[in-house]
Amino acid sequence: MDNPSLFDPSDSEVPQTTKKKAKKAAAEAAPAASKGKGASGARDISVAEFFEKNRHMLGFDSPSKAILMAVKEAVDNSLDACEEASILPTIRVELEQIGDSFFKVCIEDNGPGIPDTQIGKIFGKLLYGSKFHKLSQSRGQQGIGISAAGMYGKLTTGKPVRVISKTRRGRPVEAILSIDSLRNKPEIHSSQEIEWPERKHGTRVEIEMEATYKKGVRSVDMYLKQTAIANPHLTLILVDPSGEEFVYDRNTKEKPAKTIDIKPHPHGVEMGRLITMLKETSCRSISGFLQEEFCRVGPTLAKRIIKEAGNGLTEKSYPTRTAREQAGHLHRAINSTKISSPPTDCIAPIGDDLLLKGLKKELTADFYVTASRPAAVYRGNPFQIEVGIAYGKPGGVGLELTDTGRIQKKTKAEKAVEDLVANADEPARILRFANRVPLLYQQSGCAITKSITQTNWRTYGLNQPRGSLPVAPMAIMVHIASVWVPFTSESKEAIASYDEIITEVKRCLQDAGRKLGIYIRKGKRLKREFDKREYIEKYIPHIGIALQEILDLDDTERDDTVETLEDVLHRSRKF
Amino acid sequence: MDNPSLFDPSDSEVPQTTKKKAKKAAAEAAPAASKGKGASGARDISVAEFFEKNRHMLGFDSPSKAILMAVKEAVDNSLDACEEASILPTIRVELEQIGDSFFKVCIEDNGPGIPDTQIGKIFGKLLYGSKFHKLSQSRGQQGIGISAAGMYGKLTTGKPVRVISKTRRGRPVEAILSIDSLRNKPEIHSSQEIEWPERKHGTRVEIEMEATYKKGVRSVDMYLKQTAIANPHLTLILVDPSGEEFVYDRNTKEKPAKTIDIKPHPHGVEMGRLITMLKETSCRSISGFLQEEFCRVGPTLAKRIIKEAGNGLTEKSYPTRTAREQAGHLHRAINSTKISSPPTDCIAPIGDDLLLKGLKKELTADFYVTASRPAAVYRGNPFQIEVGIAYGKPGGVGLELTDTGRIQKKTKAEKAVEDLVANADEPARILRFANRVPLLYQQSGCAITKSITQTNWRTYGLNQPRGSLPVAPMAIMVHIASVWVPFTSESKEAIASYDEIITEVKRCLQDAGRKLGIYIRKGKRLKREFDKREYIEKYIPHIGIALQEILDLDDTERDDTVETLEDVLHRSRKF
Repeated sequence: MDNPSLFDPSDSEVPQTTKKKAKKAAAEAAPAASKGKGASGARDISVAEFFEKNRHMLGFDSPSKAILMAVKEAVDNSLDACEEASILPTIRVELEQIGDSFFKVCIEDNGPGIPDTQIGKIFGKLLYGSKFHKLSQSRGQQGIGISAAGMYGKLTTGKPVRVISKTRRGRPVEAILSIDSLRNKPEIHSSQEIEWPERKHGTRVEIEMEATYKKGVRSVDMYLKQTAIANPHLTLILVDPSGEEFVYDRNTKEKPAKTIDIKPHPHGVEMGRLITMLKETSCRSISGFLQEEFCRVGPTLAKRIIKEAGNGLTEKSYPTRTAREQAGHLHRAINSTKISSPPTDCIAPIGDDLLLKGLKKELTADFYVTASRPAAVYRGNPFQIEVGIAYGKPGGVGLELTDTGRIQKKTKAEKAVEDLVANADEPARILRFANRVPLLYQQSGCAITKSITQTNWRTYGLNQPRGSLPVAPMAIMVHIASVWVPFTSESKEAIASYDEIITEVKRCLQDAGRKLGIYIRKGKRLKREFDKREYIEKYIPHIGIALQEILDLDDTERDDTVETLEDVLHRSRKF
Repeated sequence: MDNPSLFDPSDSEVPQTTKKKAKKAAAEAAPAASKGKGASGARDISVAEFFEKNRHMLGFDSPSKAILMAVKEAVDNSLDACEEASILPTIRVELEQIGDSFFKVCIEDNGPGIPDTQIGKIFGKLLYGSKFHKLSQSRGQQGIGISAAGMYGKLTTGKPVRVISKTRRGRPVEAILSIDSLRNKPEIHSSQEIEWPERKHGTRVEIEMEATYKKGVRSVDMYLKQTAIANPHLTLILVDPSGEEFVYDRNTKEKPAKTIDIKPHPHGVEMGRLITMLKETSCRSISGFLQEEFCRVGPTLAKRIIKEAGNGLTEKSYPTRTAREQAGHLHRAINSTKISSPPTDCIAPIGDDLLLKGLKKELTADFYVTASRPAAVYRGNPFQIEVGIAYGKPGGVGLELTDTGRIQKKTKAEKAVEDLVANADEPARILRFANRVPLLYQQSGCAITKSITQTNWRTYGLNQPRGSLPVAPMAIMVHIASVWVPFTSESKEAIASYDEIITEVKRCLQDAGRKLGIYIRKGKRLKREFDKREYIEKYIPHIGIALQEILDLDDTERDDTVETLEDVLHRSRKF
């Protein structure tokens, strides 16, 4: 630990007042415990308490996963902040071993910084954030992640989180804080202005935790590598525990398209939600309400919906006076009316070009293909699917056609061994992304995996055991971009199996699969041709010698003849 | 709908006050929204709001799953309540179709009832309950389930929940309520005494919701069937939407063993938790603290731990004055000291006998085997694994040995087709249970499934593709009983992959597998023998005729000889 004094110097003797306060809070949190008769001891459960006990739901179930989760949550936040502030992100991740199974995880960005009044809540309170109540694409959405990392750190080491942040206009602030899990509130140990000359603006967070650092498919390294693929505008620096520095340079200076918050689409709104919205709107007419609170509804459409609803509803009806019966009719009318799809400027896909660039840069393969779908909707939330496939290991059996029409074995320089493309006798590797964030765990429970196994890869010339992944030297990348990604748990590791999502992923895989099929069939033809030609070529020199004897040629004439023969042979091949 | 007036009659016109209140609450919930500068619009997220948007985390992602989840949460609560009050449970589940895709789900039990002051919070507030803060085995533990079902009902129909409850001493009370998701508080529409002559005590809950009712592997029917297997003391009545009544009678009048709340085991306590406990204890010495707040620590052990910790700590040190440095030493000392395993009377496994009875009653197979393990610990929480296997479909190729030593095909009467035992060419069916609750979804993401695929079933004579489930006409049942089951999400569908749990499940599967292996090998020998004998038997009548001719026997003598020959042949077979 390079700076032990940073950590909670006041904690060496817990003052009595703290104890009393904690006791009081506990009593407040449990008003029923003392009174409740029958339902013995029923009482409130604080969110932080809940997740402290269920920390595996947040992804903190093992030391090797914990380090990844902490890095992931911090990097996600940095990327979101940079995008919102239109900054080309540069993020530095430092992993420092400070004990047998303890690490200090530091993430520093060049983002816009956080005002000091917000630091406590952002890092020391679960379910607090700016992204939950918006409908626009962002990595974070729950307001849990980074506070959870701090909570895990405190749970395993007893030590608070250190945050340094500087906004463009403000002075750098250093805060030492932790989460009070009994009350789900930040506990600020100290907060003061400091010098931070290295940065004009940005945030640095340091968390000490019990952790294990490993390489491999589900490591921090792999997460960062995949993050680089999905975020070609990002420069990432990793300093690993041995002190070695790895740099992933940005591929493009083009920032992702700015996304726009949207209003809910009428078709995705449940009955109960509609009633709540009617209660809470400030609009003074149903017509205004429909146009104001939803996307894609104009005066004409509003009129048509209200007419369809009937039941005493007119355009001028007062929204908050709508009876439940009437709301039911309105709900049915909305769902039976054709309304155009939600706007898609709330979503920023990676884009075919950049996806291809990213794949080529980070994955070595023989063949690359990408595909993307137009935006679709589940439960009123727009989403969009992109697929990229990298096929064939270099140094494998890959064959290619030269400019002169020859077939030859590929001779690309082999890069360092890549884990990302599978071997020929293994199931294809899957790279899953949600809003540009790689998902490394819970692969089998994810809608993306289900979509891949449900796709018939045999059509495209691949092996596929029934109900399994295709077996091929291949990596399949799937990206879902959405204003609200339905993760199966708070750890954001897998996507829930909504039918609409599975359908779209499958369609997109089929688009990419068809292109891959053409390549594979061509490859198989090439292979057959190659084998035949190889036999012939083996005998050409002998033919040359025979011709030399018959026609009495000199050696140069003979070699010329052989060369011409080979050339004719190759060019005569038809595809 | 048989009684529309039950539902929120006051709601037909939303009074203005409600609106203003809601607005005010929204403003209170978002204090930062108006002030926050840089972190634009960051604000608190209510737990109920969070789960309303993420309702798939609670299992409410599709109409067919929703009906199952609602039944499950209500039945779980009923069972827990009956067990706590030492009542033999009788639970009645009624599913009534009230519209195209709408159902009324009613669950009624003979439990102890709920005091009227508690009804609101139990059914109308997430994260409220009596089981979270205890370490003892129960089905519910989160304080989320039944309120979530009500929330989903309100979200899809706009209608509140109806609860009737009667305690032994109180009068029956009917409450109409829903959850105010913006504030995570119950909104009681009405609460009054009513007549309920049918019951001396019990609770009935009625929820209307958008739902689909289907039969099949993941249906309400299957959930109830499996619940009956794991809860042999339960009588369950299902009235399905067609009005048909199915009854699962109890198998035994023996109630599950009463479980006892335990204190945390010292070895499972994280550093941060230890610090919090030190702060909050009312003990006035470290020695007392260790003995009072943990299980399995007596004066001698406490002394040894404190001595090992050193660093200025004595038995009389004041717990709340412990420095973090000292707490660290104490934590290390605890973990390096040998402490006996936690007591297991906090766990009530089903037991081999009842498990076997349950399997035999609900699953038709040729062979049954069970196995169980002693209690083990993960993160300080005791847990225990039980396994049951039902092998071989009746009417399949099963062979058996008769009392006279003959081999014959089994001739059991075939019951109605059972979905629970797989066909011979299909992967084995898995029945997963946690604290006697069947888990029907997310099989692939569950630690139990992982343990089964990681077990080498080929050793026991079964087919098993690499990394897959064994392929056999077989159902594998695994039950984990624990004071705290680590579910992967709030929907409680799969168990998190803690190493300790996977190890124990695998060991228990191996125990059962060995016994199964003996049966399978015997079966294979029987099959070979049977084939040989069949050839011989085919020729015995011909031998009889030949003997008759040679020895000039009459028909009776010939038949006697043939019978004797067959008998000798069968008895001579050796195992």
